[in-house]
Amino acid sequence: MPRTSLESFNCSLARTVDIIGDQWTLLILRDAFYGISSFSDFSKRLGLARTVLTDRLNRLVEHEILRKEQTKPGVDRYRYKLTTKGKDLFPVIVSLVNWGDRWIFGADNEPIRIFDKRTQSPVQNVKVQARDGHVLEPHEVTFGPGPGASSETLLAFKKANERLNVIKPD
Amino acid sequence: MPRTSLESFNCSLARTVDIIGDQWTLLILRDAFYGISSFSDFSKRLGLARTVLTDRLNRLVEHEILRKEQTKPGVDRYRYKLTTKGKDLFPVIVSLVNWGDRWIFGADNEPIRIFDKRTQSPVQNVKVQARDGHVLEPHEVTFGPGPGASSETLLAFKKANERLNVIKPD
Repeated sequence: MPRTSLESFNCSLARTVDIIGDQWTLLILRDAFYGISSFSDFSKRLGLARTVLTDRLNRLVEHEILRKEQTKPGVDRYRYKLTTKGKDLFPVIVSLVNWGDRWIFGADNEPIRIFDKRTQSPVQNVKVQARDGHVLEPHEVTFGPGPGASSETLLAFKKANERLNVIKPD
Repeated sequence: MPRTSLESFNCSLARTVDIIGDQWTLLILRDAFYGISSFSDFSKRLGLARTVLTDRLNRLVEHEILRKEQTKPGVDRYRYKLTTKGKDLFPVIVSLVNWGDRWIFGADNEPIRIFDKRTQSPVQNVKVQARDGHVLEPHEVTFGPGPGASSETLLAFKKANERLNVIKPD
């Protein structure tokens, strides 16, 4: 994977997918949100080669998305738990599930549902919202340079008249 | 990539990442949301080998996430536009951006901002919400079998007392 080049991108999406934009990494994270934490449980559920699983888990630990803890002092067994940084990927995971529910399995054919513990009702689909709560479709937003824009990013936006997005409504 | 095995998963996340869980695919999608549509613009922005870009674009067209259209009749030039199915990936893209903004670039250092066209205010971060709008943290939800659960999925949940999730609050 061309990691070096993605690391140089002045783009939060590029930098995020450089870390988690891998099929098995995303499946490991899904399982971590299910509460799976041991190497053997990840291994059993994903049917993944030991070397691949080790590599992906180590990378998640290195990026402080998972924390590797000894289960008991003096025993060579570990569990992998989501850190705060890892838990903050929750909307990414749920939005991926939502899309597959809608476009692959279809309504009323979802394999798994996510419930609010308080009410036992399914949670809402994740959406993009304006400050006032209005749900935004892609054609209702524009992209512009932020405070951390590099000179290259600024130039790209200048060429595009300061805002990118020519998506048309359906 | 072990596509065959992921296609058999009774899981919306697995099936979704089988299609889009690839770094370059996610970057192409980001650019499509910016309104980029020509092969040469994708190529210039991503600095990606022609063969890789062609492969990723074809796969997105095959899955009806992008639609390939001739720019003019009789001219061998095309543009790639997000379909409704593709546009529905908007929350996935924004949630990936949000995470990178927070954990890689940091507050007030975001390279790019997303604005509501009506108000010119930045959009909210994507979050998981209960039906009543309450923002849900991972420890406030459980996962359970849905109407499309396979017998294998049902069994997995039965073993886990019908609900998965032992995540603890921070």
